[in-house]
Amino acid sequence: MMSLGAIADEVNGRVDGEPDFIVDSLKSMETADSRSLTYFNGRAHRHRPQTKAGAILVKAEHAALFSMHRIIVGDPHLAYARVSRLFARADRQAPGISRNAVVAKTARLGASVSIGHFSVVGHDAVIGDGARIGGGVHVGREVTIGENTVIEERAVIMDSCVIGGQCMISAGAVIGSCGFGYAQDGAKWERIEQLGRVVIGERVDVGANTTIDRGALDDTVIADGVKMDNLIQIAHNVKIGEDTAIAGCVGIAGSTRIGRRCRIGGRAAILGHLEIADDVDILANTLVSASIREPGEYASMIPAQPARIWRKNLAVLRRLGTAGRKFLNQIKPDEGEIEDGFSRTHDATAGENDG
Amino acid sequence: MMSLGAIADEVNGRVDGEPDFIVDSLKSMETADSRSLTYFNGRAHRHRPQTKAGAILVKAEHAALFSMHRIIVGDPHLAYARVSRLFARADRQAPGISRNAVVAKTARLGASVSIGHFSVVGHDAVIGDGARIGGGVHVGREVTIGENTVIEERAVIMDSCVIGGQCMISAGAVIGSCGFGYAQDGAKWERIEQLGRVVIGERVDVGANTTIDRGALDDTVIADGVKMDNLIQIAHNVKIGEDTAIAGCVGIAGSTRIGRRCRIGGRAAILGHLEIADDVDILANTLVSASIREPGEYASMIPAQPARIWRKNLAVLRRLGTAGRKFLNQIKPDEGEIEDGFSRTHDATAGENDG
Amino acid sequence: MMSLGAIADEVNGRVDGEPDFIVDSLKSMETADSRSLTYFNGRAHRHRPQTKAGAILVKAEHAALFSMHRIIVGDPHLAYARVSRLFARADRQAPGISRNAVVAKTARLGASVSIGHFSVVGHDAVIGDGARIGGGVHVGREVTIGENTVIEERAVIMDSCVIGGQCMISAGAVIGSCGFGYAQDGAKWERIEQLGRVVIGERVDVGANTTIDRGALDDTVIADGVKMDNLIQIAHNVKIGEDTAIAGCVGIAGSTRIGRRCRIGGRAAILGHLEIADDVDILANTLVSASIREPGEYASMIPAQPARIWRKNLAVLRRLGTAGRKFLNQIKPDEGEIEDGFSRTHDATAGENDG
Repeated sequence: MMSLGAIADEVNGRVDGEPDFIVDSLKSMETADSRSLTYFNGRAHRHRPQTKAGAILVKAEHAALFSMHRIIVGDPHLAYARVSRLFARADRQAPGISRNAVVAKTARLGASVSIGHFSVVGHDAVIGDGARIGGGVHVGREVTIGENTVIEERAVIMDSCVIGGQCMISAGAVIGSCGFGYAQDGAKWERIEQLGRVVIGERVDVGANTTIDRGALDDTVIADGVKMDNLIQIAHNVKIGEDTAIAGCVGIAGSTRIGRRCRIGGRAAILGHLEIADDVDILANTLVSASIREPGEYASMIPAQPARIWRKNLAVLRRLGTAGRKFLNQIKPDEGEIEDGFSRTHDATAGENDG
Repeated sequence: MMSLGAIADEVNGRVDGEPDFIVDSLKSMETADSRSLTYFNGRAHRHRPQTKAGAILVKAEHAALFSMHRIIVGDPHLAYARVSRLFARADRQAPGISRNAVVAKTARLGASVSIGHFSVVGHDAVIGDGARIGGGVHVGREVTIGENTVIEERAVIMDSCVIGGQCMISAGAVIGSCGFGYAQDGAKWERIEQLGRVVIGERVDVGANTTIDRGALDDTVIADGVKMDNLIQIAHNVKIGEDTAIAGCVGIAGSTRIGRRCRIGGRAAILGHLEIADDVDILANTLVSASIREPGEYASMIPAQPARIWRKNLAVLRRLGTAGRKFLNQIKPDEGEIEDGFSRTHDATAGENDG
Repeated sequence: MMSLGAIADEVNGRVDGEPDFIVDSLKSMETADSRSLTYFNGRAHRHRPQTKAGAILVKAEHAALFSMHRIIVGDPHLAYARVSRLFARADRQAPGISRNAVVAKTARLGASVSIGHFSVVGHDAVIGDGARIGGGVHVGREVTIGENTVIEERAVIMDSCVIGGQCMISAGAVIGSCGFGYAQDGAKWERIEQLGRVVIGERVDVGANTTIDRGALDDTVIADGVKMDNLIQIAHNVKIGEDTAIAGCVGIAGSTRIGRRCRIGGRAAILGHLEIADDVDILANTLVSASIREPGEYASMIPAQPARIWRKNLAVLRRLGTAGRKFLNQIKPDEGEIEDGFSRTHDATAGENDG
C-alpha cells in the first residue's frame, strides 16, 4: 500500500493525477486492476494499449494515451525496476544465525549477518555486514563474501573464492568447482589440480544452478556489475568484463576473455582461449569460435522452419561444399580462398588445457 | 515376484500361456532371463526379435513371433509403463517427519506426509496428504504442495510457489528462482525484483537440476500433465500448456507461451515473447525465433558430417548471402524479398525484459 | 615450498640449473614471479615466450629459449599435471564423520572415511576406504562408493547406484535421477518407473550440476576413466566407453552407446538410440543424429559472423531447398537422391522411450 506521491518521489517522477491515490500492487498491464500500478514503455504495443490499472508509470509523450492516474517519468522501465523494490516481498529469512548452522570459530561474521538452517561456514571465512546466507549453503574455507550479498539456498561456494558486495548468488549455483583440466598420458587422462580461485566483483548476479569453475593456475575473474542467468557454465580462467550480461544456458570455455558491456544471448557458446572486445552483442544460440575484435552484433543462429522445408534446405546444405564451390567460383572468381571460419574450433573438444 | 495372471489383470491383458507362471523382474529384451517379463512394441526390430525372457507383453498381431508365455495387450508400451510400477523399488524413505528437519509451526502438513533429514519447511507452507519431501529440501514460506507429490533430495521450492498433486520434482531442481530481469541505467543493469510466483498444475514432472523462474509481475504457469526432463531452463512469465513434454537441456526465454500437447526435443531453444500453438513438435537442437501458429513439425537442426566435408560446406555457407542471392534471383526472379527469419531474434539477447 | 630436485624426481625430469632452488608456487607464464615454477608446452606461443618465473618445466628442444632454472621433461603438460598435485590445497575437510551427519546403522564405512556436515548415508550403503563425502551430500540406500572417491558438497547419489574408486563427483551433481520415460495414453503421458541403476567405473570424474539418469530397465553405464565436465545431461540407458572425455553442457539422449577414447566438444548433442564408434571426436556445438561407425572428426557447428552478413547468408539458406536443388542437379546431375541426414532425428523429441 503506497501513495503515488511517495512512489513518484522514489523515481524522480511527477504525479499527473491524485498524489494521495493508494496502490496496493505492481502488475503488468494485462493483469492490473483498479488498485494496481503498472508501466508503459511504448515498445511492445502496436495498438492503443488497454489496461484496467488504477495508475501508470509513463513517459510524458505517451501520457495522453491513458486516462488513469499517471506518474510521468523519463524511463518507465527503469522506474518500474525501482518501484519493484518497494513491492518486493519481505525478507524471506528470519535474521540471525540459525542454531542448526555450523559456523567455524575462526570465521568472521559482520554485523547483521543471517545464516539459514543447515548451512556451513568454513574456517577463516569472512562474511560482510548485512550478508544473507540462505539454508543449506556451503561456504568453504577462507571464502570472502562482501556486504549485503545474498547467497540463496543450496548454493556452494568452494574454498578460497571471493564474492564482492551487493551480489546475488542464486539457489543451487556452484562457485569454484574444479575446472575441466587433464593431461594425456597415452589414452589416459590425468587430472590437473585446479589451484586458482573464482574472484567475483561487486553487484554480480549468478543464476540458479549456474556453475563457475576455479582457475587452473590463475583465477577465474568476474568483474563488477556482471549479470548471469540460470544454468550457465563458466570454465576455468575465464575473465568477464564489467556490466556484461549473459542470458540462460550459455557456455563459455576455458581461458576466454570477454569484454565490458557485452550482451550474450541465451544458449550462446563461446569457445576457449578467445578474446571478445567490449560492447559485443552475441545473439542467441550463436557459436563463437574465433576472437571478436570489433563491437557490434554477431550471429550464427538458424531459426526453425516447418520440418518438410528444413529437410530440403538441409539436403542442399550438406552438399554445398562440393557443388557450391564451383558455383561460387563462377559468380565471384577473384575472391581467393574461401574462409571456413573453422580455425579455432578444435580447441573446444575436451582435453585441451591451459595454464 | 508376480504371476502373469495378476499382471494381466493390472493391464487389462489376456494371458496366452500359463497364468500361474511367476516372473521376478522386468527387463529389456536383451537382458531378460527365463524368469523375466519383457515387452515388444513392434517398432525397433527389423529382424525376428531375440530374447530369453520367460514372458512377454505383446500385441495380438505379433504374438506368433514369440514362443514363451505371452500377455496380449493393445499397447505393449503403455502396459509396460503400468507394470513398471509393480516392480518399482520400495519407497526410498522412511515415513514420517525426520527429527532433523525444521518445520515451521505455522506450516500445515496433511496426513502421511514424510519429510527427510535436513529439510526445511517455511512459515505457512501447506503440504498435501501423502506428499513425500526428500532430504535437504527447501520448502519456502507460503508454498503449497499437493497430495502425493514427491519432492526429491536437495530440490528448492522458493517462497509462495504452488505445486499441484501427483507431481514429481527431481533432485536439485529449483522452482521459483528470480527471473533475469534488469533495467538499464546507462551502462549499468538495475535489478528488477521478481514479484510473481511459479504455479505448477497436477501430474507435472520436473527433471533433475532443472530451473523454473518466478514471474516478474504475473506468474510463471506450468499446466497439468506437463513433463520436463533434466537441466531445462524456464524463464520468467512463461506459460506451458497441458500435456506438453520437454526433453533435456531445453531453454525457454521469458514470457513465451507454449500450447498444449507440444513435444519439444532435446536442446531446443525458444526465444522470448513468442506464442507456440497446440500440437507443435519442435525437433531436437532447433531454435525457435518466431511465433508458430500452426501445428506440425518444426526444425533447424544440422546433423554432423565428417569434419572435412562439413568444413567445405561451411566455407560456402558463410558466403551464401552475397553469392547466393544472385543465384537465387536467377533461378526464381519473381519471388520478391527473401525472408531471413530473423525478426524476433534480438529479443533473445540479455537485458530485454517484460512486465 | 619445494626444491627443483624434489620436483624433478616426481616427474622423472632432469634439473638444468640449481637443484636446491626453492619454488613456492606453480603459476602460468604470465603471472609467475621469481619464486614460481611454470611450464612451457611449445604450442601456444608464436613469439619468444616471456615469463618472470624462477623455474620452468620444458622439453629439451625448447630449453635454450629460457634462461631461468629448468626442469627438462618429455611432456611438460603431463609433468605440470603431476606437479599440480604437489601444490594442491590441503584437504578441505576435517577427517572423520561429522556428528551432524546421519549415517544408517546398516551402512558399512571403510577405514579413514570422512563425511561432512548434514550429509545422509542410507541403509546398506557401502563406502570404501579413504572416501571423502562432503557436506550436504545424499547417499541413498544400497549405494556403493569405491576407495578414495570424493563426493563434493550437495551431490546426490540415488538409491542402488554404484560408483567406483578414485572418482570425483563434483558439487551439485545428481547421479541416478529418474530417466525421462513415458508411455502415451491418448494425449496423457504415463510415467514409466525407472528400474535400472547408474553404474560408474574407476577414475571417473563428473562435473558440477551434471545429471546422470538411472536406466529404465537395464543400467546406465559409465566406464573406467571417463571424464565429464559441468552441466552435462546423460539420459537413461546410455553407455559410455573407457577414457572418453566430455566437455561442458553436452547432452546425450537415451540408450545411446559411446565408444572408447572419444572426445566430445562443449555443447554437443547426441540423439538417442545411436552407436558411436571408438576414437570419435565430435566438435563443439555439433549435433549427432545418426550412428557414427568410423573414427575421426565430426562437426556441424556454425561459427558466428557479423549479424548483417549472417542475416544475408540465412536468407539464402532458408530457400536452398527449392532453388538449390535445381542448382545442384545442374552441377551434378548423376548423383541420385540427396541425403538430408535426417532419418533418426525424430527420436529426439520427447516421448520416445526404450527398454
